[in-house]
Amino acid sequence: MRTEIFEIDTEGPGLYEFTDQVTRWTVGQNDGLLTLFVRHTSCSLLIQENADPQVRTDLQAFFRRLVPPSTDPAMAYLTHTYEGPDDMPAHIKAALLPVSLSIPVIAGRLMLGTWQGIYLFEHRDRTHSRQVVAHLQ
Amino acid sequence: MRTEIFEIDTEGPGLYEFTDQVTRWTVGQNDGLLTLFVRHTSCSLLIQENADPQVRTDLQAFFRRLVPPSTDPAMAYLTHTYEGPDDMPAHIKAALLPVSLSIPVIAGRLMLGTWQGIYLFEHRDRTHSRQVVAHLQ
Amino acid sequence: MRTEIFEIDTEGPGLYEFTDQVTRWTVGQNDGLLTLFVRHTSCSLLIQENADPQVRTDLQAFFRRLVPPSTDPAMAYLTHTYEGPDDMPAHIKAALLPVSLSIPVIAGRLMLGTWQGIYLFEHRDRTHSRQVVAHLQ
Repeated sequence: MRTEIFEIDTEGPGLYEFTDQVTRWTVGQNDGLLTLFVRHTSCSLLIQENADPQVRTDLQAFFRRLVPPSTDPAMAYLTHTYEGPDDMPAHIKAALLPVSLSIPVIAGRLMLGTWQGIYLFEHRDRTHSRQVVAHLQ
Repeated sequence: MRTEIFEIDTEGPGLYEFTDQVTRWTVGQNDGLLTLFVRHTSCSLLIQENADPQVRTDLQAFFRRLVPPSTDPAMAYLTHTYEGPDDMPAHIKAALLPVSLSIPVIAGRLMLGTWQGIYLFEHRDRTHSRQVVAHLQ
Repeated sequence: MRTEIFEIDTEGPGLYEFTDQVTRWTVGQNDGLLTLFVRHTSCSLLIQENADPQVRTDLQAFFRRLVPPSTDPAMAYLTHTYEGPDDMPAHIKAALLPVSLSIPVIAGRLMLGTWQGIYLFEHRDRTHSRQVVAHLQ
């Protein structure tokens, strides 16, 4: 069993890939299970297409439309707003998207599909340093 | 390896915290992985902010707007309605929110972030007794 | 520890149950943890009600309304559209729904609730062969 904490710096909303970091860290392991867990309630983990960057742009656009900033008239019912218009929408997106991911490792290979990348999905506007705990069994 | 079934009583929609129960149960474990699994299709597990209770109020308000009761004209297309107007919306919310959570344990400490609490998110109107299976490896 | 790759053939959008395959595969195991992981970014895993088929119809209808095809005027902002109108909506649904599931096994029994079935939720229109990795610890 091994554990690690990855630090991921973010500069505003969007998807930050860290597949390579995770892949390097699992090298040498035979069979096992990798678990990733993000220690925050205003960003998420996500496995998504790693080929066309427009997929990430569109994903972000969809979630911004589904959960607009609290200054948007459609969100006038929100009450937790004192940390800024991106605060409560970030919590909502963090509820809709994964906080943990489990990926099997077989014969030393992380079983991601060809088009799957691992991302930290940042929902807040200002810069953050995010912690992702990795656990390999 | 240890397993346990937590029983959580709910009295209508909302977030019921059970972080303390889980933390007490993992005490004494060195390194490992905690898995939580809810045995129902009309409530969810959720890790969310444990500080300002308005975050929970707002989360519940968002999901009620996203998936209103089946008596709402916007939901007239729903067909599974014989158990009441909160029935099918509960299944939809249970699809949108986690049924299982994986949290690493390092040096005897559950690796939750400072502001993360563990909740049972009830989607049904009437009282229920909910089962959450805990598994510690 | 055991691993397996389930192949699931799909013929258009909808929920394809494979609970029986998983249950058969876990028979004989004592205590442990089952992890399922889908190796694609345009379909999902889902645990949902296995009784009334209308639940699955309604779930599909909800997600089609929440994320309509990119030819729908409401989705005019999408840019990743060259693989067809079901392409980017499939990625969005794959973000909203689980890519991995963790289910405890106690005394040889998968701890699913009475009404819980395991499904592959296909989001694409044309036929596909989907891979789900199973890992039993």
